[in-house]
Amino acid sequence: MGAKWYLGTGAQNDVVINTSIHLARNLRSFPFPARLSLPDKLKVNTVIKESADTISGYKFNYNEMKTLSQSEVVSLAERHLVSPEFASSRDGRALLLTDDEAVSIMLNEEDHIRLQVMYAGFALDEAFRTATAIDKELSQKLNFAFDDKLGYLTQDPIALGTGMKASVVLHLPGLVTTSQITKLITTVSKLGLSLRGSYGEGAAAKGDMFRLSNTITLGISERAAIENLKSIALQIAAQERTAREEIFKAPVTEDRIYRAYGVLKYARMIDTNEFMELMSLVRLGAVKGIVNMDCATIEALMIHMQPATISLSVDRPLDRIERDKLRASLVRQNLG
Amino acid sequence: MGAKWYLGTGAQNDVVINTSIHLARNLRSFPFPARLSLPDKLKVNTVIKESADTISGYKFNYNEMKTLSQSEVVSLAERHLVSPEFASSRDGRALLLTDDEAVSIMLNEEDHIRLQVMYAGFALDEAFRTATAIDKELSQKLNFAFDDKLGYLTQDPIALGTGMKASVVLHLPGLVTTSQITKLITTVSKLGLSLRGSYGEGAAAKGDMFRLSNTITLGISERAAIENLKSIALQIAAQERTAREEIFKAPVTEDRIYRAYGVLKYARMIDTNEFMELMSLVRLGAVKGIVNMDCATIEALMIHMQPATISLSVDRPLDRIERDKLRASLVRQNLG
Repeated sequence: MGAKWYLGTGAQNDVVINTSIHLARNLRSFPFPARLSLPDKLKVNTVIKESADTISGYKFNYNEMKTLSQSEVVSLAERHLVSPEFASSRDGRALLLTDDEAVSIMLNEEDHIRLQVMYAGFALDEAFRTATAIDKELSQKLNFAFDDKLGYLTQDPIALGTGMKASVVLHLPGLVTTSQITKLITTVSKLGLSLRGSYGEGAAAKGDMFRLSNTITLGISERAAIENLKSIALQIAAQERTAREEIFKAPVTEDRIYRAYGVLKYARMIDTNEFMELMSLVRLGAVKGIVNMDCATIEALMIHMQPATISLSVDRPLDRIERDKLRASLVRQNLG
Repeated sequence: MGAKWYLGTGAQNDVVINTSIHLARNLRSFPFPARLSLPDKLKVNTVIKESADTISGYKFNYNEMKTLSQSEVVSLAERHLVSPEFASSRDGRALLLTDDEAVSIMLNEEDHIRLQVMYAGFALDEAFRTATAIDKELSQKLNFAFDDKLGYLTQDPIALGTGMKASVVLHLPGLVTTSQITKLITTVSKLGLSLRGSYGEGAAAKGDMFRLSNTITLGISERAAIENLKSIALQIAAQERTAREEIFKAPVTEDRIYRAYGVLKYARMIDTNEFMELMSLVRLGAVKGIVNMDCATIEALMIHMQPATISLSVDRPLDRIERDKLRASLVRQNLG
């Protein structure tokens, strides 16, 4: 594995873990993937792959999903390189992925093209610039389904318009501990954004990690959507910092951080949920300078310790107990 | 502080923490302490002290209880050198104590003399030999209240006869974890013995530490009482070892031990109950060779981390949070 997007420290990384821009695009000359035969899907893959190969400055690795093992596919989802939906059904689907995993293109997910650009830290402008540049190059080779009134056509009408989803993943232990998070989720939804757990779809936010995304794609420019997201993300980050100052006034916070570190350093078995919970405390301590760990290592661990990704590090299938043991062992090594 | 009884490792110390022999004696020429005036109590103290000073091979430090601070007195109780009852009311009471704390004599507790000999590990014969030797020397100087039919006279009829209570403190995490302890307590009580928490009177046994003592002093010789206790203690120790083998079959046991060690090594605040609970696991691990700590250090920590004893290590009174912080800090130092 080469250097990945998360193996660096981005802007505002006390709170902002990463930024991503997703663009949904469809080829005018093919029906949406749901109505596409398998041979036609493969044709779509080939057409897009060939166009992507001509983009200067980016080298994509092409993988047909059905050639990958179950663990490899689930691991891609755990690393947020493909959607869980994409991982769940593999026939006719393919993935274009750069070595640094900063750019990925799902082929034949809900749309023909789901382009994702993901950067560490708070980097909406940079990610948008990259996504736009790649989109522009692709659009010169491919004829995208576009309507002058509706914008980019997508299978799900919810993405109609810009077809763009911008997200930042935020670490919000302060707002969770001070019980401000529920109200914030409601507030944010009224502003055309969604805020929800980044690890574990639907479930409670593991590791206090939340994804803030725009939900409106119609009647708003990409620029305006990004500025809106940026402004609210910065407000939430400021609120989070205030909440952290608050919780650090109680000595129990420092104690909890050290205990989390101690358990991670000594446990012989550890499941994903507990790992994420403890790691959230350790990250809070690392940012505060209490725990001597850099955020890049923490982000990498959070990704590599997910169930399927961890299984990739050994040659054979692991049951839950073996996996929890392996996780504990790998965590100990990484905590030094 | 010089070397104490617990700073050594005794026989069977995987299970047996320490052994003690208590002898209750009264002077024939004085009423029991409950009916004694303060001047007479002081007279009793002086008479006994002078006799004790003549015993060859033992040098006793004499302290009138009312000259000690509240923390010093409670700490003596935490170290099991005086009874909680003795610590609760100090007027007219005094303590004779050897430097190694192996021999202590409470003066004017319920009886004029409460001699205690305490050794590390399983050492009933040795402790009884020492107690008998001291008792013999004292009896040559002092006229003990003794009745040919009833034996030694004591204020509480329960101790009439030999006036001897023999105890071993047992570490029983295996029997607690496998839920065998409640039944064992009932069984033991039918055999003329009592088994109960060693730390924290009445409460649940902190740190899985239990005191096994004889309850019968009348109609049985000291020798017979000790042999009975010895035999049952050995049976319980064997049962405990079997239970430990059982619980170590589940990988969670090793995990719990390591986690306990990790928390002790990193926590910034820790209260007595949690400390004892974690230390019990660490002791189990140390005996098994999982944790690199010797039992003597563990025993010393268990004693020194009790609330009043810990307060003695600083010059000023501590509130609960300060004490829990100091405990965590001292524990970290001792875990190296």
